[in-house]
Amino acid sequence: MATTTSGTRRRVGKPRGSYAKTDEKRRAILDAALEVFAQSGYRSGSIRDIAERVGMSEAGLLHHFPNKSTLLAAVLERRDDRAVQFIPLDENFGGRSTVNGLLELASYNASEPGVVELYCTLSAEGTSPDHPAHQYFIDRYEWSRGMIERAFTIIQAEGDLRPGVTPASAAARTLAMMDGLQVQWLLDRDVLDMTEELRNFFRTIVSYEL
Amino acid sequence: MATTTSGTRRRVGKPRGSYAKTDEKRRAILDAALEVFAQSGYRSGSIRDIAERVGMSEAGLLHHFPNKSTLLAAVLERRDDRAVQFIPLDENFGGRSTVNGLLELASYNASEPGVVELYCTLSAEGTSPDHPAHQYFIDRYEWSRGMIERAFTIIQAEGDLRPGVTPASAAARTLAMMDGLQVQWLLDRDVLDMTEELRNFFRTIVSYEL
Repeated sequence: MATTTSGTRRRVGKPRGSYAKTDEKRRAILDAALEVFAQSGYRSGSIRDIAERVGMSEAGLLHHFPNKSTLLAAVLERRDDRAVQFIPLDENFGGRSTVNGLLELASYNASEPGVVELYCTLSAEGTSPDHPAHQYFIDRYEWSRGMIERAFTIIQAEGDLRPGVTPASAAARTLAMMDGLQVQWLLDRDVLDMTEELRNFFRTIVSYEL
Repeated sequence: MATTTSGTRRRVGKPRGSYAKTDEKRRAILDAALEVFAQSGYRSGSIRDIAERVGMSEAGLLHHFPNKSTLLAAVLERRDDRAVQFIPLDENFGGRSTVNGLLELASYNASEPGVVELYCTLSAEGTSPDHPAHQYFIDRYEWSRGMIERAFTIIQAEGDLRPGVTPASAAARTLAMMDGLQVQWLLDRDVLDMTEELRNFFRTIVSYEL
């Protein structure tokens, strides 16, 4: 880890202070980009608007992220890093732990409406084959379905999946439920509790106490 | 009905032929608007692009729909008229009939990817309070949840709702499931069958054979 950092330093050849500043600026740009993409979508969201929010020129911003799609990729990657805190990538993470992790993720999402809005808007836009995040979303859903399917397969082996439920179908429906609840919650935050409804959903899939 | 038609004719004072032509143009504009809004969203979708698709000038289009939000409202209204074929508005429509109607609606949607894309993109964009369709979506979800809740209440009275399931929660989750399945289906049409997964979902909610 230390080697990588010093390696990077050597390659770019700037003193430490500049790095801290650069990192800070990058973070500020990504925060602003998240807000703009969440509100206006990727297509309508403008680099100029993002630059203005952090008090930079467009050229200044493009020094950090050479184009809009690089910026989008960085926003998505940063958000995924946070989500993975709740669902470790470990293959042997376990069935019940994954279900619990998804419930914790839903609670965390409820504290970050901007991020939920970003995902909701971008995943809808991203269904178009010509959208720069199209492949990202295809891969992300495939990966997530696989991960959740493995969890339900473990739960099934433990005898805790309800009769007639298959792990693959339960996985696709879990993602659908999480996505769909977000739309209703964004429209009216008092109308439903995302975590509670996801728990209600899981109760119809698994037979252990939840 | 005849009175209304002749009344309208007198008011505008044009012969029958012009009417048919006007209707045809309006329909062509709405088809083009649906495509453009579905692909680019409402915010990025341009009147000019819509006009070009039907071989009109922007001014010509604005003669039929005075602005972009009127056009959006007309596109949404037209789509709702079609959806209501599957779920009659009659309060006494019945529990099982509503569930069957929603399954038929899911099948119909699978034959109209453009319409699904429109709803998916617009409902995501429309979660922003400043979006022209924001109130439309709030009202639409409230109405739909109420209608589905009534259906599940009837099913419950018939003893066919699974233990622990409440009609209100089941209604919110039904809409969430339909919306969420659409995102995954739009990303990859071979990955899941929306009607089949909706049926799998209903099977965990109701106890009668489905």
